[in-house]
Amino acid sequence: MTITARPADRLLDAVRGGAQIYDLGRLLTIGMPQSPNHPPFWLSMPRRHGDMVRADGGSAANDLLVMGTHVGTHVDALAHVSHEGRLHGGADAADAQAGGRFTELGVHTVEPMLRRGVLLDVPAVLGEHCPAGYEITPADLDAAARRQGTPVEPGDVVLIRSGWGRFFGHEDRSVYVGRDSGVPGVSSAGAGWLAERQVHAVGADTIAFECLPPGQGHTSLPAHRILLVEHGIYLIEAMALEELARDEVYEFTFVMIPLPLFGATGSPVRPLAVVSRG
Amino acid sequence: MTITARPADRLLDAVRGGAQIYDLGRLLTIGMPQSPNHPPFWLSMPRRHGDMVRADGGSAANDLLVMGTHVGTHVDALAHVSHEGRLHGGADAADAQAGGRFTELGVHTVEPMLRRGVLLDVPAVLGEHCPAGYEITPADLDAAARRQGTPVEPGDVVLIRSGWGRFFGHEDRSVYVGRDSGVPGVSSAGAGWLAERQVHAVGADTIAFECLPPGQGHTSLPAHRILLVEHGIYLIEAMALEELARDEVYEFTFVMIPLPLFGATGSPVRPLAVVSRG
Amino acid sequence: MTITARPADRLLDAVRGGAQIYDLGRLLTIGMPQSPNHPPFWLSMPRRHGDMVRADGGSAANDLLVMGTHVGTHVDALAHVSHEGRLHGGADAADAQAGGRFTELGVHTVEPMLRRGVLLDVPAVLGEHCPAGYEITPADLDAAARRQGTPVEPGDVVLIRSGWGRFFGHEDRSVYVGRDSGVPGVSSAGAGWLAERQVHAVGADTIAFECLPPGQGHTSLPAHRILLVEHGIYLIEAMALEELARDEVYEFTFVMIPLPLFGATGSPVRPLAVVSRG
Amino acid sequence: MTITARPADRLLDAVRGGAQIYDLGRLLTIGMPQSPNHPPFWLSMPRRHGDMVRADGGSAANDLLVMGTHVGTHVDALAHVSHEGRLHGGADAADAQAGGRFTELGVHTVEPMLRRGVLLDVPAVLGEHCPAGYEITPADLDAAARRQGTPVEPGDVVLIRSGWGRFFGHEDRSVYVGRDSGVPGVSSAGAGWLAERQVHAVGADTIAFECLPPGQGHTSLPAHRILLVEHGIYLIEAMALEELARDEVYEFTFVMIPLPLFGATGSPVRPLAVVSRG
Repeated sequence: MTITARPADRLLDAVRGGAQIYDLGRLLTIGMPQSPNHPPFWLSMPRRHGDMVRADGGSAANDLLVMGTHVGTHVDALAHVSHEGRLHGGADAADAQAGGRFTELGVHTVEPMLRRGVLLDVPAVLGEHCPAGYEITPADLDAAARRQGTPVEPGDVVLIRSGWGRFFGHEDRSVYVGRDSGVPGVSSAGAGWLAERQVHAVGADTIAFECLPPGQGHTSLPAHRILLVEHGIYLIEAMALEELARDEVYEFTFVMIPLPLFGATGSPVRPLAVVSRG
Repeated sequence: MTITARPADRLLDAVRGGAQIYDLGRLLTIGMPQSPNHPPFWLSMPRRHGDMVRADGGSAANDLLVMGTHVGTHVDALAHVSHEGRLHGGADAADAQAGGRFTELGVHTVEPMLRRGVLLDVPAVLGEHCPAGYEITPADLDAAARRQGTPVEPGDVVLIRSGWGRFFGHEDRSVYVGRDSGVPGVSSAGAGWLAERQVHAVGADTIAFECLPPGQGHTSLPAHRILLVEHGIYLIEAMALEELARDEVYEFTFVMIPLPLFGATGSPVRPLAVVSRG
Repeated sequence: MTITARPADRLLDAVRGGAQIYDLGRLLTIGMPQSPNHPPFWLSMPRRHGDMVRADGGSAANDLLVMGTHVGTHVDALAHVSHEGRLHGGADAADAQAGGRFTELGVHTVEPMLRRGVLLDVPAVLGEHCPAGYEITPADLDAAARRQGTPVEPGDVVLIRSGWGRFFGHEDRSVYVGRDSGVPGVSSAGAGWLAERQVHAVGADTIAFECLPPGQGHTSLPAHRILLVEHGIYLIEAMALEELARDEVYEFTFVMIPLPLFGATGSPVRPLAVVSRG
Repeated sequence: MTITARPADRLLDAVRGGAQIYDLGRLLTIGMPQSPNHPPFWLSMPRRHGDMVRADGGSAANDLLVMGTHVGTHVDALAHVSHEGRLHGGADAADAQAGGRFTELGVHTVEPMLRRGVLLDVPAVLGEHCPAGYEITPADLDAAARRQGTPVEPGDVVLIRSGWGRFFGHEDRSVYVGRDSGVPGVSSAGAGWLAERQVHAVGADTIAFECLPPGQGHTSLPAHRILLVEHGIYLIEAMALEELARDEVYEFTFVMIPLPLFGATGSPVRPLAVVSRG
């Protein structure tokens, strides 16, 4: 009798060799900071233990979950954003959404990701956290990749740390959203840099991935257009990147599995960065 | 300049070597079969493209998601089931749920899984799909593991295929739920077999993991008690296992990342089985 | 000092003289019968007593409510139905719903109703409950009004009893919905009869107001078109009319107050029939 | 043939004589001010016109509604508040809520109200709007009733206007909630005054009915205890009382019909004040 049918699976061998998992998803809690454009996260138990006890002594508690798909750490599907009525690939947005769900570009079409991931730690280059409204430039991205020795390659998932994530748990929930102050992030030029490198997906530790200038809210989102609409590159927002930076983990296996919400424009996710141990 | 900071990450090397991903999660659609004990899955777009067009020509669509955490493919947290008022580890269920969420045993405490996975294909042993209400025995599980050459090891995630998953897409949604007919699955003895082997989590292609005898609904769920309450083994339900069986993939890297829904009793998931290519 | 500022308010005098209130709304419960086209009714307590006790000894429980606006007893706003792309008054439906809510014909524009109400008790004329799929004709409506001595007048709210309401609480929830059997109700001709009389609103003890022929579901709804689209007459569905019929109350003050859900296509309601006492 | 079966229904006669209806309910809109303790109001259309057109040319739009039952204008059921573990009448709160709904004191037990209503216009006595955190005293209530010539009688519904309602539509939604500033309203003594008069229900133009001292939030709610728990008097919050005051309508027929949400602690409502015309 053989022990395993596939004795030499490299991936399973690597997993069994030990792996350290970094959790890049925010805990989903009632009242966490979010854009007011989306339904907030709510959770409630219709049934608690003791509400209905079976004859065998067993009892089950369950939940009712309500949320927008763009709250907490989440991924934007290509269906999320259109430009002048067109989605990525040129599809007419009005046609694509007829029926009330996106059969073609909905989040159920986003394949699970098991890819090379790179963290670009911008504050490590700047010598300080990116200030509110700071526009991360191609030069910043180049400098970060060079400092770390982790060039970006086609197909990668690139996570850009601005340091703004430290405000996610701030007592005043409006700080992270930064409506008045603005929020740091890449803008047109930085998005172009990423698109040129043909990355598969990008993420950040901020609510809208890209730079939000002070006081302008979401009136203009050029990086969304460039990445989602023009290049079909997925966006991951509100990530937790502090631990990766602390441990100077700049290259890793990125694992993310969007929920297959049929026809939706996004999904809550809990992305992981995994590195082999030892 | 070095190319990578961690040139020898075994996991990343394996990933780059190519991997085939089997998607074990059901598409989440309005109207899919589910237990009536849980709030059904609903999805709607509060904003569609064109509802609000920005000055820069951009427009975003978004979603409102409502669902129970035990519909579609999902994982049960240890907080889900109690026996005679006690949760796993002996905690008093009434105390644990005070406050309206499970701080200790909620689904946010379920670590992402990146482990050896084993499929036990029971129909392959029986020579036919398990009939309605069929009780999968330790002998069946032993025979399946032996036939495949994949013994179950401590820490594994074990997926038990009954063949009932073929009814998930049945026109009459009550067939999969099997209220009248019953549903195949392990019962006490089979659950004991799994617990003895100290597995980390178990899954099945049915709605309640365990055997539901005809006409009894959920009046008695001994496997839930044995696995969740007595042994702290997670349950994954309503999985899609047909492709794994078709391709005779019995051992794999199992990847599952529950959403960190703070204090909840379960989470929708999209588990993966991954094997190296070539 | 005067006792009241408005000593001769006729309405208040009548109310103080005593009134009997008939509740025409169904109790809203999880699992009640409904059309599968709409999100079902769910209710859960995020906070129960004891979850959070204030220093002063007080504690509050609250709720999370999820529902379609066309489940339970409800009123259809004019925005609910279009015919060949046009709403009542000729508005283009696509334009009217741009923005994701109906500014013009949404349920928030339905004025509270305090009007003469008339019950037309069709089974009292037929000598039996209307059978499944029975089409209530103008002759039936005429006969019912004549038998009762309650002619229908412009501005009235007319409630048509088929007797089908007895199935609302049926153990098998699909009976009331009547997908296979069909459901009794007025069809084109009956709707025309009502429209000619220039009534303000109509209601019935069934799920879709109008006749649903066996096995056809909602494939054709001519009365919806005639009443909502062509004549701007509101529809009230799933009413409880048994007590009115039992007490032979055929004329009454009809009171209904839709929730001002801005831009919605319907609202749950609890309509009343009120008669003076003594 | 008789014209009507009940020729002398006083109420219907009064209604036909003409009535002016004041709408005391706030429009339910996404983003309206509310206490953060409750799930906010959200509304979305799963189906819009054109998403699914029937063969007969008809199309229907529908809604998915999500909300707390204590947002917008709403009524508190007696189940809402407990004091030292007891509900109104002495019931044990833990027992009463077992099962996940209040069979006894839930909002479905609140009878529709068709009663004498009295507005007590406090600013008209004070000569100015009640300032933030102002405590409305028995002397204020007495003075208002005397000024208007509308003594409060047993069974009445008494609406107390503070003038704070002018902030409901304020651009900064936190103003109406008044967490920092406080909110005017009756406190212990004023609640006692109302309870002594054996009123049936009370309402106000504020978010919590009673006085919220600056900076204390909802840490102590004595009027809730006195009215709901000790005297079984319903509370109606976030009412629109400006028009009544403008027109000096101090006595009226009060009409309010809570939704029969089985077992819930509150319900959104759209209360009316009705006066005969001419």
